[in-house]
Amino acid sequence: MNLTPKSEIDFRTSQLQKQLQAADLDAAVFAQNADLFYLTGTIQSGALYVPAEGQPVYFVRKDVARARRESPLERIEGFSLLRDLPAGLAKFNLELPKRVGFEFDVLPVAVFERYRKIFDPAEYRDISPVIKRLRMIKSNYEVELMKVAAIQADCVYRRAREVLRAGMTDIELAAALEHTARLDGHPGIIRMRSFNGEMLFAHVFSGPDSAVPAYLDTPLGGVGPHPSFGQGASWRRIAEHEPVIIDTGSSASGYLVDQTRVLSIGELPELLTRGYHDMLCVQDLMKKTVAPGVVWADVYETCRALAEELGHSDHFMGYTGSQAAFIGHGLGVEIDEFPIIAKSFSKDVFEVGMTFAFEPKVVFPNLGAVGIENTFVLQPHGLEQLTFTDEALGIVN
Amino acid sequence: MNLTPKSEIDFRTSQLQKQLQAADLDAAVFAQNADLFYLTGTIQSGALYVPAEGQPVYFVRKDVARARRESPLERIEGFSLLRDLPAGLAKFNLELPKRVGFEFDVLPVAVFERYRKIFDPAEYRDISPVIKRLRMIKSNYEVELMKVAAIQADCVYRRAREVLRAGMTDIELAAALEHTARLDGHPGIIRMRSFNGEMLFAHVFSGPDSAVPAYLDTPLGGVGPHPSFGQGASWRRIAEHEPVIIDTGSSASGYLVDQTRVLSIGELPELLTRGYHDMLCVQDLMKKTVAPGVVWADVYETCRALAEELGHSDHFMGYTGSQAAFIGHGLGVEIDEFPIIAKSFSKDVFEVGMTFAFEPKVVFPNLGAVGIENTFVLQPHGLEQLTFTDEALGIVN
Repeated sequence: MNLTPKSEIDFRTSQLQKQLQAADLDAAVFAQNADLFYLTGTIQSGALYVPAEGQPVYFVRKDVARARRESPLERIEGFSLLRDLPAGLAKFNLELPKRVGFEFDVLPVAVFERYRKIFDPAEYRDISPVIKRLRMIKSNYEVELMKVAAIQADCVYRRAREVLRAGMTDIELAAALEHTARLDGHPGIIRMRSFNGEMLFAHVFSGPDSAVPAYLDTPLGGVGPHPSFGQGASWRRIAEHEPVIIDTGSSASGYLVDQTRVLSIGELPELLTRGYHDMLCVQDLMKKTVAPGVVWADVYETCRALAEELGHSDHFMGYTGSQAAFIGHGLGVEIDEFPIIAKSFSKDVFEVGMTFAFEPKVVFPNLGAVGIENTFVLQPHGLEQLTFTDEALGIVN
Repeated sequence: MNLTPKSEIDFRTSQLQKQLQAADLDAAVFAQNADLFYLTGTIQSGALYVPAEGQPVYFVRKDVARARRESPLERIEGFSLLRDLPAGLAKFNLELPKRVGFEFDVLPVAVFERYRKIFDPAEYRDISPVIKRLRMIKSNYEVELMKVAAIQADCVYRRAREVLRAGMTDIELAAALEHTARLDGHPGIIRMRSFNGEMLFAHVFSGPDSAVPAYLDTPLGGVGPHPSFGQGASWRRIAEHEPVIIDTGSSASGYLVDQTRVLSIGELPELLTRGYHDMLCVQDLMKKTVAPGVVWADVYETCRALAEELGHSDHFMGYTGSQAAFIGHGLGVEIDEFPIIAKSFSKDVFEVGMTFAFEPKVVFPNLGAVGIENTFVLQPHGLEQLTFTDEALGIVN
């Protein structure tokens, strides 16, 4: 069992505390699983209280013994009622904060109101921009875990080549790949930060179904098994000469990579083959463009312009009217982290340590979608590609 | 593809509107997937605006065409920015509401603040108690879908009996069962309403690992594959003469049932066998106790008292100090619905149409957990059990 090292947690805490001090906050409270895992090494239910100076206190409702086993934090306190929090803080000579940050982007209104009753009167600030930007820059430790996840992505793709056959349903193919990933340590879900974000292992869809948009903010959506969960694999049977999308969110020790490859039983129609190679060209352009200091939106505009030049103005990044607003997204503990390679991020620049998935994709209505996706890290010496599966169109017979 | 019938949606809307009128609300806004599915039949991203009188308007950001295909609602409007909502309402002669309900228990603070900017000045109320109590009473249509899910639960259990062998890991067993459920239409995740609620198909754990508490508010937790997702199956190898818990959240057309059975390779130690039969006695007592008008907490107290009488005061419903506060929970679209059979619900009574899982379980530290779980519906003629798998201890050789 891979525990997050104390040095990692200590470094993350100190970086966070610098931000708290810069924002003139006395403390921040974290309660969401992804942030808890990042800052404590576990996800036991409760609240992590990080003062602007000094050691954090992890108040744990359930399970304290596990929190002590899994987290290197020294101050782990059991509690059952929120109103006991002030007394818990007093134990460590911590006063109630006057200005305190909460995760406004994920914390439900009712949960926040319960905290307010304890902390009032205080000034409340949204800490989510701070924690998102902190988590955006990965350590070598984090990148190494993502490299392990990249091996899983390759295994899953190779498994797809093995089991793919005409007549099987998308769900049969997806289930086989999920089985492979699960045996390799995938927890079975992928964490999304955005409200209503729900994701499993991978999106597998074939032919026209791969061109169907869904509720998620992703370029491709898929029909899914039922309208109650209208994304990903459906009951459609896979035919020859059509694209089969293997979009894998692989996970190792809590860290994700994202990879997409296209398979086909027999050759794809010329139109789609050309589209696939066009997307490889867009990826090549991104690789030449991304560097420290380059603006996220500029990468988006440059790559989008090339896609349009290549004739994909209508259906680049999704079905017309349902296109994703981005071509790339950060990832690590969650699949929707910073950076976001999109038009609206016109002030943010690439920095060393950022990890992101880049996924130029194009839809051909009634035929299907094609595209490529890889996960990258910006290293001091340049862009490094973490996912490594063969990028040739996967033609199987 | 099973679409929610118009008659269902219309009935749910009219029941909700009665509540809005009774609470003197002009309208309520729903944005969370489970509520959207319940009230629209789909989960396309956006907001459902339900006025106290007249037809609801479903504002859909992505994907409008799918919303129109999957939902029987007549008023489905595309939109991209929240600030266009007032104009959208005006199209249907709807004024901005003066008193409006939002799902405070699930809506993130930042999302709510964006709505506030549109609706201010207005009075805001928490609509979650209303929608939760509405969803608590199931129609015959909903119960029929849950019966289909019960068939899946039985398939999964029979598959577990087939594949279980000494030396396999909990994750191998879980992955095999998840594969079976997925091929039967399980979407791959189980929706939980509670903050940080994360769940897959089923909890599978064996021996001492079944007695390990986790962050979730469940009687049994499990170690999980990694501290980043510390619940459910772990890498532990299954041995002979120890309990293997098959706790299945089965799902059909968006509706869940919950079932737990215990397997063992060879006989279980006498202590655990007796514990298992004690839990069956607790279940029997519940069956005799639940009836329309009976208080939830009374069922809890009565059943808990029997468990204590039978000698399980310390570890009934979980490891000491990490016990679940309930013995049963409502379920349907989410796994944590009303009713909650717990001490703190001392004023709520059982009503015809309620569906709930009842799960008396007991932990034997360092040995493992045993227990039973079935899903029930309270019918006019009495309690009906929806899950039907053989309740004998599953001894395989």
